[in-house]
Amino acid sequence: MSQQSWEELYSIALEWTKEAGTYIREKMKNTYGVSSKANQNDLVTDVDRDVEELFKKKLKECFPDHRLMGEEGSAELVNDLKGVIWILDPIDGTVNFVHQETFFAVSLGVYLNGVGMIGIVYDVMNDEMFSALKGQGAVVNGTKLARLGEVHLNEAIISMNAGWILKDRRLEYFVNESRGIRSYGSAALEIAYVASGRLDAYISFALSPWDIAGGVVLLSEVGGIATNYEGNELSYLEKDTFIAANPFIHEEIIRHVHHKS
Amino acid sequence: MSQQSWEELYSIALEWTKEAGTYIREKMKNTYGVSSKANQNDLVTDVDRDVEELFKKKLKECFPDHRLMGEEGSAELVNDLKGVIWILDPIDGTVNFVHQETFFAVSLGVYLNGVGMIGIVYDVMNDEMFSALKGQGAVVNGTKLARLGEVHLNEAIISMNAGWILKDRRLEYFVNESRGIRSYGSAALEIAYVASGRLDAYISFALSPWDIAGGVVLLSEVGGIATNYEGNELSYLEKDTFIAANPFIHEEIIRHVHHKS
Repeated sequence: MSQQSWEELYSIALEWTKEAGTYIREKMKNTYGVSSKANQNDLVTDVDRDVEELFKKKLKECFPDHRLMGEEGSAELVNDLKGVIWILDPIDGTVNFVHQETFFAVSLGVYLNGVGMIGIVYDVMNDEMFSALKGQGAVVNGTKLARLGEVHLNEAIISMNAGWILKDRRLEYFVNESRGIRSYGSAALEIAYVASGRLDAYISFALSPWDIAGGVVLLSEVGGIATNYEGNELSYLEKDTFIAANPFIHEEIIRHVHHKS
Repeated sequence: MSQQSWEELYSIALEWTKEAGTYIREKMKNTYGVSSKANQNDLVTDVDRDVEELFKKKLKECFPDHRLMGEEGSAELVNDLKGVIWILDPIDGTVNFVHQETFFAVSLGVYLNGVGMIGIVYDVMNDEMFSALKGQGAVVNGTKLARLGEVHLNEAIISMNAGWILKDRRLEYFVNESRGIRSYGSAALEIAYVASGRLDAYISFALSPWDIAGGVVLLSEVGGIATNYEGNELSYLEKDTFIAANPFIHEEIIRHVHHKS
């Protein structure tokens, strides 16, 4: 596809994501008031399936040669990254969705032969849309995000799940040496926060392609770096460890989580 | 004061807090673009001082017998809880304010002879206003918050700073036994989130009266419980340990953090 076609595709991806967001807010509102835990779990199932169906149907109509990769059953089995692949998580932050009714995101990455071209992370309830088209920078609700500036670990805010700290005591280093630790419960949002400078790094033990595909495109547009714990490129085909970071501290983080076994 | 006077005072406190919020957003916008770390630290100092001055001046005009307790120098030294005391934190979540330019709150509690009458926690950038008048329930942006329902620890989301876990290994119990751990970096917001059911508990090693005075009023209006680690009432005169929790898990939390020394 030409550059112009990618700009069109970017507009379309944004439009469909907004449509998904409107649908989710509507569903959420209608379920409010009858929201037992069981109802909420049904709601997750419904929303996951319906949003994926929405994208699947539209892709079939508009771009029949594009493939859809996602968590849910309705997506095809994707074993390679050839051509154009839409990597979708309809609700990133499922526990937040059920429990908090906020702080979750629609995450979408559109990849061409394994290269991230479009990245979208949409915080549905706070109506905060992070998005990027490769080579054109990243924006939040239309405002351009600055390239990430120099930061040192002792002034960095790092996000990670406290559970990982108990599983890998090396992570305690960051608790002691950083300015502060946060945890929001949505990988996609946390990567978007690194891209927007609210966080300087986000570390996770185990993430799937659809958790990270959207955020990583945002991040690289502002000069951030995303790899696994070994510092290697992400595969987007299987679960892996994950580090998204400001470029000035990425290497230092790798040094403290990576050990030869 | 009569009940009617307290309702009037509640309206006035909400109005002044909104005014402070508008001032903070304006200041934030004007500093945007020139935002080095040094500038941001100056901004904190300015906003802290100016918001406290705003309340101090208005109190002097409208309620000269009310006292103001706060972190900043402009407030009087308060050594007892007699009469009406306004306990104010102009920016709860200073690190977030500087680093994230969001996720901080104006926190205000108005206490009568040590009893919380008015509680306000205002998430300035997300324009989310949590507030309560004793005996009338709590609201967020005008929508009534439900009384806290039954929850078990294994389905609870608990907020705490990862730093506390390293200082007191007993807290690891909650990492292992709860549904999830979060950390947002603003005590006032985190207490408000417990009151709104987004979190089921918030645990901290060391908080000052102005960090908690607003949130605790919200919390008790929805049936939540706030104490120190020993399960004792909070003094509002000095720093202390702190637990805000859903009433169904407060006792269990106390059991796991309290030890006779």
